[in-house]
Amino acid sequence: MALAGIAKVERNEAGIETVVGILRQRYGERFQTGQAIRDQHGHTMTYIPGQAPDGVFFAEAAEEVQEVVRICADHRVPVIPFGTGSSLEGHVNAPGGGISVDLSKMNRVLAVHAEDLDCTVEPGVTRTQLNEYLRDTGLFFPIDPGADASLGGMASTRASGTNAVRYGTMRENVISLTAVMPDGRLVTTAKRARKSSAGYDLTRLLVGSEGTLGIITSLTLKLHGIPQAISGGVCPFPSMEAACNAVIGTIQMGVPVARIELINGLGMKSINAYAKLNYPEGPCLFVEFHGSDAGVAEQAEMFGEVAAEYGGGPFQWTTVAEERAKLWKARHDAYWAGMALRPGAKSLSTDVCVPISRLADCIVETEADIAESGLTAPIVGHAGDGNFHVLVLADMDDADELARMEAFVDRLNMRAIAMDGTCTGEHGIGQGKMQFLQHELGPAVDYMRAVKQALDPLNIMNPGKIFPLEG
Amino acid sequence: MALAGIAKVERNEAGIETVVGILRQRYGERFQTGQAIRDQHGHTMTYIPGQAPDGVFFAEAAEEVQEVVRICADHRVPVIPFGTGSSLEGHVNAPGGGISVDLSKMNRVLAVHAEDLDCTVEPGVTRTQLNEYLRDTGLFFPIDPGADASLGGMASTRASGTNAVRYGTMRENVISLTAVMPDGRLVTTAKRARKSSAGYDLTRLLVGSEGTLGIITSLTLKLHGIPQAISGGVCPFPSMEAACNAVIGTIQMGVPVARIELINGLGMKSINAYAKLNYPEGPCLFVEFHGSDAGVAEQAEMFGEVAAEYGGGPFQWTTVAEERAKLWKARHDAYWAGMALRPGAKSLSTDVCVPISRLADCIVETEADIAESGLTAPIVGHAGDGNFHVLVLADMDDADELARMEAFVDRLNMRAIAMDGTCTGEHGIGQGKMQFLQHELGPAVDYMRAVKQALDPLNIMNPGKIFPLEG
Repeated sequence: MALAGIAKVERNEAGIETVVGILRQRYGERFQTGQAIRDQHGHTMTYIPGQAPDGVFFAEAAEEVQEVVRICADHRVPVIPFGTGSSLEGHVNAPGGGISVDLSKMNRVLAVHAEDLDCTVEPGVTRTQLNEYLRDTGLFFPIDPGADASLGGMASTRASGTNAVRYGTMRENVISLTAVMPDGRLVTTAKRARKSSAGYDLTRLLVGSEGTLGIITSLTLKLHGIPQAISGGVCPFPSMEAACNAVIGTIQMGVPVARIELINGLGMKSINAYAKLNYPEGPCLFVEFHGSDAGVAEQAEMFGEVAAEYGGGPFQWTTVAEERAKLWKARHDAYWAGMALRPGAKSLSTDVCVPISRLADCIVETEADIAESGLTAPIVGHAGDGNFHVLVLADMDDADELARMEAFVDRLNMRAIAMDGTCTGEHGIGQGKMQFLQHELGPAVDYMRAVKQALDPLNIMNPGKIFPLEG
Repeated sequence: MALAGIAKVERNEAGIETVVGILRQRYGERFQTGQAIRDQHGHTMTYIPGQAPDGVFFAEAAEEVQEVVRICADHRVPVIPFGTGSSLEGHVNAPGGGISVDLSKMNRVLAVHAEDLDCTVEPGVTRTQLNEYLRDTGLFFPIDPGADASLGGMASTRASGTNAVRYGTMRENVISLTAVMPDGRLVTTAKRARKSSAGYDLTRLLVGSEGTLGIITSLTLKLHGIPQAISGGVCPFPSMEAACNAVIGTIQMGVPVARIELINGLGMKSINAYAKLNYPEGPCLFVEFHGSDAGVAEQAEMFGEVAAEYGGGPFQWTTVAEERAKLWKARHDAYWAGMALRPGAKSLSTDVCVPISRLADCIVETEADIAESGLTAPIVGHAGDGNFHVLVLADMDDADELARMEAFVDRLNMRAIAMDGTCTGEHGIGQGKMQFLQHELGPAVDYMRAVKQALDPLNIMNPGKIFPLEG
């Protein structure tokens, strides 16, 4: 399973033993070494085998994270940050052992600056927790990767999701971070101003660095006004190409679509079966529009016209909250609906992203590849960004099927890269995609490695992720 | 003039002599050492004294830039990239001499991908050149820093301008870069997909790095659809606070304002005098809205209501292109109008950015400071971002006035930093703001320096900018 690329990290047994002893004495119950907790912190959401850390520290303050990082640095022991464990490429695994720093208890909303449309949170705050906290302010945090991930984890993997097409990804929505660096110092990467040209963009360097350059201990995030009105609907299309052309047309017309999600025929079939619905079982776009009452009606009408141009329809849309909720529940259930296509199977959620002019080509070729490979694999996509996921369902005990799955995923990543796209739009590299990063960016990876070596010369921060380093 | 912070860079006379000899022989007329051309390439737009390079190379291809960087690296000679020379903090100065690489002849639009709303250009393409090229496509590149800067230079300083509030800055609008790195290798920082979680964000690391990490040789930029309709207008306010509150209210209501520019009383007076207009001579907001016909009318009405709530008005707006052009010409002329307040004076354009909740405080305190300092200095601001400029007009032969200007600018930068803002929203650090960067971000600057040392161990790329390095 593409594990050829997974880097070995040598275990420093003596160092680990020393650090475990120090932390046990220093923190008592806040430092856990029981097998179940360790396994839970080195689990993965997909096919990558779990690699448990040697102990789990439940941090409650940045100063504690600093202390643990300093102790680990002194003894050259790996430190692996942990949010909710919902990452998909083995990010929380501990290939060389070491200490998992669980940030879930650092879950306070530190400040909401409503006039500035921003807030500052600890890294363990989850996106639904934040939005519940904001409920009475008229503001919300838009990024929705599906899972109720922690915001620190979402920043670390440069997460996005269904409404990135309008609101951007974590790249665009993090104003500033504080982080414990590999030498144990705490830095603030930027002030709270919306714009800055003050030196190198350390904020964006840490966003997406997957815990390999530092541990985020607070984040200042952009918030957005809850729109006055929301409209949404579902529109079937005669072909994948027609659906993708409608996406391109909608965006080119400047319709500020908030969500435009593509589900292929098998995906729609799985949703119908799972939720007892009766949508057409071909490619469909799920769309949502945010704005004024007049604005969302206008946007829905403009979309409907574009869709009809490409043979799509009927496009049924509504501004009624309950009906919209039902519609988006169907979309959000796509993962579980897909899983239900093959009870007992495990899933692998892939993640490629291409220029949207190539989205139809990429999906059509991928559907053919799935069929030729004899795999069961519905497709859902954040079509406005050119990003899509194939949910490959496989029997983990069937070596032949696993080999076909691995070969398929390899081809999918290389296909996206060949189309001037990326092997990961939002899940990250982790352990699973290191060799594809090399294919994708070649020499640029050498400079990433140089940055890593400059900031973490001991290679203690989440080692064995993104790129192999000499041990 | 805040020059205490300007870093010395030792001249490597022997290396410079050797490199000048090699380049003269290798490139003939394409390499110039005449005093006028050297002075023009080491000039600055403001008060910082010019520091000419030892020669200017007019690059025509990335391979040539690679060759020049390699030659300079071999002999440890500085390389300073040059676009149009419109930067404001001494970015193109050559404090240790060396070779200016003029990229203005690398000015081809390499590709326009209309379906993907992106284009790829060489670094010497200017923003107006690009928009003229795009004229028939229905697309445009929105970022407008005022000057007709080169896009490579705009990326290097993380430029923005009047419509960043809607379209973002260079940080958000660069999809990918190719750059010649300090070792002479050419890298591509990302593929052309809209989103990516593939490794460290080298694109954002190079954007805003002011030529200190590499020389940009092409850029892939986001484009936007030309809006169906545009409306715009001017609205006077009884006070700076009222104007700033109207900005906050407008943004909080979710009005997707494209431009919302603040000009203070002295600024309005200068515009009236310069362009023979008769706007009210108190704080005014110049606004522009992009959208559908119905949308821009609705946005203008919503803004008018918010403005009235804070005592602003009358708000006169129009969708007629000629009237809008006249209005924005007045705004764009603010620099020249300001200069005309005091013929013969030179100007210093400051650049701070604060959270918008602090904008009124920051401007009101700054206006009082200007008065107490006995300076002539109109204020214009990109209010939606909390970013404003003070155009200080001074007689460069009056040592006392220069001292008062310097002290004022110091206080302004420190005031913005104390309000959780930055000493530069869009101009960059260059030579002029190094000590303020240190005040602003403290230990974070050490990690920026570590990145610099890792990627440019010989310190040949635009040395003496952003932060001092040991020579």
